[in-house]
Amino acid sequence: MDTVSDKVSVGVVTPLRAHFDQPLTLRSGAVLDAYDLVYETYGTLNAARSNAVLVCHALSGSHHVAGRYASEPETVGWWDNIVGPGKPLDTERFFIVGVNNLGGCHGSTGPSSPNAATGKPWGADFPVVTVIDWVHAQARLADRLGIDRWAAVIGGSLGGMQALRWTITYPQRIRNAIVIAAAPKLSAQNIAFNDVARQAILTDPDFHGGHYYEHGVVPTRGLRLARMLGHITYLSDDVMASKFGRMLREGNLKFGFDVEFEIESYLRHQGDKFAGYFDANTYLLMTKALDYFDPAREKDGNLSATMGLAEARFLIISFTTDWRFAPERSREIVSALLDNHLDVSYAEIDCPHGHDSFLMEDPHYHGIIRGYMENIKP
Amino acid sequence: MDTVSDKVSVGVVTPLRAHFDQPLTLRSGAVLDAYDLVYETYGTLNAARSNAVLVCHALSGSHHVAGRYASEPETVGWWDNIVGPGKPLDTERFFIVGVNNLGGCHGSTGPSSPNAATGKPWGADFPVVTVIDWVHAQARLADRLGIDRWAAVIGGSLGGMQALRWTITYPQRIRNAIVIAAAPKLSAQNIAFNDVARQAILTDPDFHGGHYYEHGVVPTRGLRLARMLGHITYLSDDVMASKFGRMLREGNLKFGFDVEFEIESYLRHQGDKFAGYFDANTYLLMTKALDYFDPAREKDGNLSATMGLAEARFLIISFTTDWRFAPERSREIVSALLDNHLDVSYAEIDCPHGHDSFLMEDPHYHGIIRGYMENIKP
Repeated sequence: MDTVSDKVSVGVVTPLRAHFDQPLTLRSGAVLDAYDLVYETYGTLNAARSNAVLVCHALSGSHHVAGRYASEPETVGWWDNIVGPGKPLDTERFFIVGVNNLGGCHGSTGPSSPNAATGKPWGADFPVVTVIDWVHAQARLADRLGIDRWAAVIGGSLGGMQALRWTITYPQRIRNAIVIAAAPKLSAQNIAFNDVARQAILTDPDFHGGHYYEHGVVPTRGLRLARMLGHITYLSDDVMASKFGRMLREGNLKFGFDVEFEIESYLRHQGDKFAGYFDANTYLLMTKALDYFDPAREKDGNLSATMGLAEARFLIISFTTDWRFAPERSREIVSALLDNHLDVSYAEIDCPHGHDSFLMEDPHYHGIIRGYMENIKP
Repeated sequence: MDTVSDKVSVGVVTPLRAHFDQPLTLRSGAVLDAYDLVYETYGTLNAARSNAVLVCHALSGSHHVAGRYASEPETVGWWDNIVGPGKPLDTERFFIVGVNNLGGCHGSTGPSSPNAATGKPWGADFPVVTVIDWVHAQARLADRLGIDRWAAVIGGSLGGMQALRWTITYPQRIRNAIVIAAAPKLSAQNIAFNDVARQAILTDPDFHGGHYYEHGVVPTRGLRLARMLGHITYLSDDVMASKFGRMLREGNLKFGFDVEFEIESYLRHQGDKFAGYFDANTYLLMTKALDYFDPAREKDGNLSATMGLAEARFLIISFTTDWRFAPERSREIVSALLDNHLDVSYAEIDCPHGHDSFLMEDPHYHGIIRGYMENIKP
């Protein structure tokens, strides 16, 4: 990750915590009696409270979208390249909110939080959460912050699905939705990759049925495999070829099972790093939220009918080399919006980085978001 | 698998075993002092010994290419749809040989065979084998059978790589090479998938550093994950969508981690089945042989220079929906052959089954092989 200069960054930030006592009934029927949401804000809410933008995170993201913590000056937020003064999501014009979703492992209530009923971590007893549950929880946070209506909700991948869900569930509370590298629902192949990742975690002997916290262990092996596999699907075949190709780590074949090709070294490193900080139960929940996302299901699979509930303006963005959520999937959304004569802009960006492109600082991509945001009246 | 009627099948077959005492020096430098190859033959070798066809197997195949065993009448060979009387590889004209490769787990010497030096199974001490090693071993089997020159060597995927290797290593011993759904070398993405599969096995606590035989266990979890992941890459996105889509196993969402979508059920079943009979050390070796395959490496990466060593006629076949070894990869081979003015036919088959298409009974695909074989003088 690039280091960040305070000149172009929101600088040092501090996470905030909101506690909610009103029970939340989840899509599954389960009820969360009380919960915390951890969030960050950048910029200033204007007097009309009309310049708020919600940034939704994807599988492994968090509320820490931009800036850095005083205690960790080297670690910048996951979307610092887009959020800041003068950046496409301009903190001099907008009040940006990042929130860690329910079920997460970065401070909001999730499987590693204490379960009031037992005094022990929730673990596998934490209820399955879905995109609509997150949107309801985010709406309560908006209430708390005095935000009746978001100027925009934006996200990539699973984050884009939340932006889309906002337009259906709270059509009057969102003026603009920016949906990046997303899909209206997962394909069988998408679900298949998620299920292999889940099975890696669920069958790790250190998983202990999801109650590993009590055993003082972590299902590192499973989580590492899940992340390695994920990474393959985040990158394009082309970028893997150009970055790694068949390059050998030490220049010669070794005829064994240690790292031999550079791509192996990269993937194992990514897997080890991730397994060192991310929670396995959260990973399971996030992949399930992806699998379940299918808002058209409520209208017998008719996406056009579903999007007929929306009133927002839309910016939909896809990337040519993204094979996880290919441009065709974004075009399904565009088509459903056009069926309803909604105001929609669509950009298909030629960026080599596959699904990960949504995190990259591509000038064309950022230019489009910048231009769109400049046209939003705060 | 379809059941087989004796009318169109080679019928009941019996595997044969050949023992070799002459040491074999492998590509890695390791030496196998002695080894067995298990093989099957179908049809009759003609007096001129000029009608022999070698069928090479891929990752999980074996010598049992066609027909059935008296003891297992329900299980037909893995390529029974193509090998038999009147079939594209016509046993009334050709003498077909299937052989289990070194390192395999179907009878030929491999990790589960006893190591003469210790009296225990080889396990992780079995040397890493590569495609050229298999070709050398197959050449010795040809010597034993009195076959100076194959009428054809044929295979799909890793089997196609063996056919290609034959044309370079023993140009005068092969008249025709049929290379199906293959590539001249693996891409970074291909290697990445293989490495995730290997890591699943290597990090399974039941793997015991490859010496699980002595512990009376099998790394089932790892092998199951490897196979689940493999299956995703064998199928096309489209065929997964049409066969499984987002169909739910029991019609309703369950908000848990048991099987929910049909695709999960299918993959887990495939994984369980495979883990019940295949050897994990063999799986590791086979994926390494795939990764290492890169004959152009010997000519500084110049595939045209490499194929300049060949004298055979070629039939190259790819499948439009195969994203594991896409048609582009086959065209690289075709191009290198054309650079050398070699006799090459190329067919790109529009078949929905992805990489697995090479095992399917597609009329266009089989018609092309039939036509090519009919033009070979036995």
